[in-house]
Amino acid sequence: MTKKLVLAEDRLFPVGEPARSLARALYQTVKDLPLISPHGHTDPAWYARNINFPDPARLFIVPDHYIFRMLYSQGVRLEDLGLTPRGEVGRVDPRKVWRIFAENYYLFRGTPTRIWIDHALHQVFGVEERLGPDTAEAIYDRVDESLAREEFKVRALYERFNIEVIATTDSPLDELASHRALVRDRWPGRVVPAFRPDPVVDPEFEGFSQAVERLGGMTGEDTGQWSGYLKALAQRRQDFKALGCTSTDHGHPTPATADLDPREGQNLLDKALSGRATAAEAELFRAQMLTEMVRMSLDDGLVVQIHPGSFRNHNPDLFRRFGRDMGADIPQRTEYVKALKPLLDKFGNRADLTVVLFTLDESAYSRELAPLAGHYPLLRLGPPWWFFDSPEGMLRYRRLVVETAGFYNTVGFNDDTRAFLTIPARHDMARRVDCAFLAGLVAEHRMEEDEAAETAADLAYHLPKRSYKL
Amino acid sequence: MTKKLVLAEDRLFPVGEPARSLARALYQTVKDLPLISPHGHTDPAWYARNINFPDPARLFIVPDHYIFRMLYSQGVRLEDLGLTPRGEVGRVDPRKVWRIFAENYYLFRGTPTRIWIDHALHQVFGVEERLGPDTAEAIYDRVDESLAREEFKVRALYERFNIEVIATTDSPLDELASHRALVRDRWPGRVVPAFRPDPVVDPEFEGFSQAVERLGGMTGEDTGQWSGYLKALAQRRQDFKALGCTSTDHGHPTPATADLDPREGQNLLDKALSGRATAAEAELFRAQMLTEMVRMSLDDGLVVQIHPGSFRNHNPDLFRRFGRDMGADIPQRTEYVKALKPLLDKFGNRADLTVVLFTLDESAYSRELAPLAGHYPLLRLGPPWWFFDSPEGMLRYRRLVVETAGFYNTVGFNDDTRAFLTIPARHDMARRVDCAFLAGLVAEHRMEEDEAAETAADLAYHLPKRSYKL
Amino acid sequence: MTKKLVLAEDRLFPVGEPARSLARALYQTVKDLPLISPHGHTDPAWYARNINFPDPARLFIVPDHYIFRMLYSQGVRLEDLGLTPRGEVGRVDPRKVWRIFAENYYLFRGTPTRIWIDHALHQVFGVEERLGPDTAEAIYDRVDESLAREEFKVRALYERFNIEVIATTDSPLDELASHRALVRDRWPGRVVPAFRPDPVVDPEFEGFSQAVERLGGMTGEDTGQWSGYLKALAQRRQDFKALGCTSTDHGHPTPATADLDPREGQNLLDKALSGRATAAEAELFRAQMLTEMVRMSLDDGLVVQIHPGSFRNHNPDLFRRFGRDMGADIPQRTEYVKALKPLLDKFGNRADLTVVLFTLDESAYSRELAPLAGHYPLLRLGPPWWFFDSPEGMLRYRRLVVETAGFYNTVGFNDDTRAFLTIPARHDMARRVDCAFLAGLVAEHRMEEDEAAETAADLAYHLPKRSYKL
Repeated sequence: MTKKLVLAEDRLFPVGEPARSLARALYQTVKDLPLISPHGHTDPAWYARNINFPDPARLFIVPDHYIFRMLYSQGVRLEDLGLTPRGEVGRVDPRKVWRIFAENYYLFRGTPTRIWIDHALHQVFGVEERLGPDTAEAIYDRVDESLAREEFKVRALYERFNIEVIATTDSPLDELASHRALVRDRWPGRVVPAFRPDPVVDPEFEGFSQAVERLGGMTGEDTGQWSGYLKALAQRRQDFKALGCTSTDHGHPTPATADLDPREGQNLLDKALSGRATAAEAELFRAQMLTEMVRMSLDDGLVVQIHPGSFRNHNPDLFRRFGRDMGADIPQRTEYVKALKPLLDKFGNRADLTVVLFTLDESAYSRELAPLAGHYPLLRLGPPWWFFDSPEGMLRYRRLVVETAGFYNTVGFNDDTRAFLTIPARHDMARRVDCAFLAGLVAEHRMEEDEAAETAADLAYHLPKRSYKL
Repeated sequence: MTKKLVLAEDRLFPVGEPARSLARALYQTVKDLPLISPHGHTDPAWYARNINFPDPARLFIVPDHYIFRMLYSQGVRLEDLGLTPRGEVGRVDPRKVWRIFAENYYLFRGTPTRIWIDHALHQVFGVEERLGPDTAEAIYDRVDESLAREEFKVRALYERFNIEVIATTDSPLDELASHRALVRDRWPGRVVPAFRPDPVVDPEFEGFSQAVERLGGMTGEDTGQWSGYLKALAQRRQDFKALGCTSTDHGHPTPATADLDPREGQNLLDKALSGRATAAEAELFRAQMLTEMVRMSLDDGLVVQIHPGSFRNHNPDLFRRFGRDMGADIPQRTEYVKALKPLLDKFGNRADLTVVLFTLDESAYSRELAPLAGHYPLLRLGPPWWFFDSPEGMLRYRRLVVETAGFYNTVGFNDDTRAFLTIPARHDMARRVDCAFLAGLVAEHRMEEDEAAETAADLAYHLPKRSYKL
Repeated sequence: MTKKLVLAEDRLFPVGEPARSLARALYQTVKDLPLISPHGHTDPAWYARNINFPDPARLFIVPDHYIFRMLYSQGVRLEDLGLTPRGEVGRVDPRKVWRIFAENYYLFRGTPTRIWIDHALHQVFGVEERLGPDTAEAIYDRVDESLAREEFKVRALYERFNIEVIATTDSPLDELASHRALVRDRWPGRVVPAFRPDPVVDPEFEGFSQAVERLGGMTGEDTGQWSGYLKALAQRRQDFKALGCTSTDHGHPTPATADLDPREGQNLLDKALSGRATAAEAELFRAQMLTEMVRMSLDDGLVVQIHPGSFRNHNPDLFRRFGRDMGADIPQRTEYVKALKPLLDKFGNRADLTVVLFTLDESAYSRELAPLAGHYPLLRLGPPWWFFDSPEGMLRYRRLVVETAGFYNTVGFNDDTRAFLTIPARHDMARRVDCAFLAGLVAEHRMEEDEAAETAADLAYHLPKRSYKL
């Protein structure tokens, strides 16, 4: 018994009147604003080569840990979802993977993934039946056929999606060939790199010392020396900047920062490169590097993003067999007030740079993050991240943050995804939920409607554009 | 001025339309489903002997720490509520206790206790006036008279309440005489034990070493030896299983787990039995025993429940005078990501067993528990527990858990009570609140109505039945 | 394009019917109750001298860290807001400060500050246009002119605001000259001191040892001796009490308590006075002093308030330049269950004294604070504090606290402000939000309307009056 797939006009708007009508009216004013995507994980090569995406399974399931982690949690084997263990040769039957997904689609009820996939199927591919065992084949065929067509190439979709600019995430060791090609290309789309130095600033990253050596090779600096190491990083930042980069990004276990002198820096670097750094020393090294990155940003102007608090690769068996990003990164309690103090003592009063803080620990929103961002000129708060990029997550964020930090110590929305096809869905969700929140304020006479409209446009478009200097 | 006691048809449903109508419609589809009660604290002897309950005070107040803790917090003496200090002879005037309760009934405004008691008075006893000083006597009389009647015996109520199966909580040292009698009995009601080994796996439990010795006596194993100790536990689990048991339950201060070798196990057991274990060693012993319990469950199939995070007997004066369970157990911050790692490293990827996690630290829902349960096949989340078995507690749980873990990494509702008369009230509350939550999703177009109906039935009935293998 | 400033009749009430109508009806029953202000930071000299307030900038901006921290966070210099660095001579152009405030007024959208200021401008000064760059001058003039008039003197406003009693916050070293003058004065207003001994019980407070010495001088006790030190404090408490004081207040970094013997007390006092106390010793000293304060309260009956969890003066550069209370106090994670145990072990079962707990860590509401207050007769919970004295903050508090502790283990509202002009706005907000919460309970049939009305009056008036013995 096939069910219709309908995207209701009023989805995600509050239930009671006049809040719903207010939300609808606000949403009308922001829904067609271009998409600013200052933080994402799409592959720059897609745009450089203007690819077609592969089959539905490799498009929607294989690369998306939101999706396969849920299926895995219910006993589906990753191999059956098309994931390939390290050292093995993949043998994916995409249609079979899709069928498993369809049979288990009910597991996603109430999750943002469900909303994103429905949105993409309906809006991008014109699907009008709900995905399920009965519709799996037909939808597979429809999507698969579409993907081969010219108008589903990535550049056509970029334009159709009304993207104004999108940032990728790139290692300092990346030669940025695709970004170079894009700069030379006449295509008007704007795809810029973001500087993510984790592999060369985190002594616990796999292959750290080789990576630092390679950094030396790329830059002609002696990265075994603290000063040369820093110069090499500064040089790579310049290279990134030349290709349009406006921000750095740091995925650390904690937001610890430090303020050490160069001799201590050298000492820690020696230990890190020799592989003899203890866990505490590795933490201190990362802490110092956050401070160094901010110091460099005061020179070159790159906006700093800190994404702390994930226990990466929590499942050692899965990590051994499949590697990173297998849905086994688990949030942890995250402390900011003491962790950021060394950095803030040095640079917290600077109003000429922005450090954007993210969290996976929602208890920090009202207790630590909003009070910090509501005081220090240096700090802004990033949007709800990862597990919290969701309707309830966004509402909690606004309710916990705005009363202390206001709207203007936040940087608006970013989609943070490698799932290109869901980018419009994610921005649409954020715009709807922000309008829902604002409509609630108006309906309760905590804000006037004209102010809500201005704020809605700021959150959807102006704040990310301005905050990330795009 | 006597007030009517009315149970409104729409109680606990959301305020705005169409959410309220949707909730009402959903509730109609689940309200008559049988009650599955996989985790509770009623006394198996009640069912074996088919007792009448005693007077209203001894039914509702004396055994219910939710009730007397509130009265105590406002200065009422426990003795005046019919509780008897250790070593003293109780002299309860139940009518007087009831009067104190009625006079202070306003203290329970806004609490789930108020809703449960009102429900029980109205639905079980037909009371139609609100409890208060003016109605205390009349209601006492009505309840007291009812309790003496045949149709208020526990088996009649079990059937009237539409209970399909109920689990009790039992010590490995319990001979399970009542459960044995029930197996032989022709009464079709299903009352099964649950294996709660805290007294013999927690070195800090009062009388631990004697308990372990007694365990040896019961099983013919040398429980001074690590291997004999484990065999004795396995044997008792078999005995429980033979009487219908499908689960174990563990009330530890933290969810710490460990993965030690047998020599270390023996070493810790020696210290624990000699009473010389430090706090850290006792913790490590409990941690290892959680892992051992899961290992045994992989053999015998018993579902594992972990109830961590309560600081038991926080009030030493009360503990000295009255003993355990006096309303002085206080939740504490609880960490799961590191605590469970030793267990998950070993067994986390097993899809053939269920470990159900509970918490008293709501900050862990979205940060740790939903991400863990949304990844590891071994894990499921138990319903909101204890202080959070309440309308707001349930809504927070759904809002914080579902977006990451979905509905199907949770195990539906359990009532967790020793207050038999309130069991229907508790299930009714859970069903109403889940329907309210689902109706909100439908009203905001985040879920379709047919899916909500299916999910409502799963949460109320199918998930607990399936998760606990009942 | 000037916008109207309207205070909507239904502001802060819930959106859906019948909740909104219920809230409106409840609010009608409490809106005119006198204001009880048991905890605030206004200056007793104002009342003693019956001052006129200065210009709008010095009234609203310069003394209010809620306001200047937001502006500072967005890059406005404190000097430009009229704040004067230590050792410098202030040169405030109030009209210029006001203009900056007006230009940046949009930053406060969605914050309680916005609601308070709008309320004060409209209700106290009759302003009918929204503050903004276009109206800054006119509003400045209107407020400035009003402030000079007789009916805007503080005593006239006190009466107009319908304040019944207001407490100030005073150091044991304060001679309380204003309070003495007020006792002699025939003005019927009731302004009482509160005993805030932080400067003489916190070894890390600036100038601790001199303060303790001065305490000795004031009391004729040898405050270098533990017993003399305690006697001096007890004597000052008596002096406060003679002037109407009914409470003490303690702003500690943590709620740690201790139960040391006098020899240990002497030992710590010696170290503290010599300036050689370690951080841990300073913490232990404060911990012991909390217990001592409660012990003294058992004698003299002063209600004890504990305000823990703020990392004071987090911004060292600002502290060096401007001093305390510059908007750089940041909340921290706060643990209560172990911290309070020494105190509760001694006095927790006393029903003849009230200790009021506050928090800046909302994760403790449902996990620790409501369970503690719902058990120990000694404990009550203070209203949402500081950053959480806001609509969302109040709703979270009720939702997280009431189900476990009820309404009657809380002490109702206090305004906690030095911004005299906003006091009615703050009480109005609290009354509206409590009525909104209660109306929601009634609309969902979780409470009857007559009970909600009784509870609303208790929260607004009777509970603070009774809890603080006013």
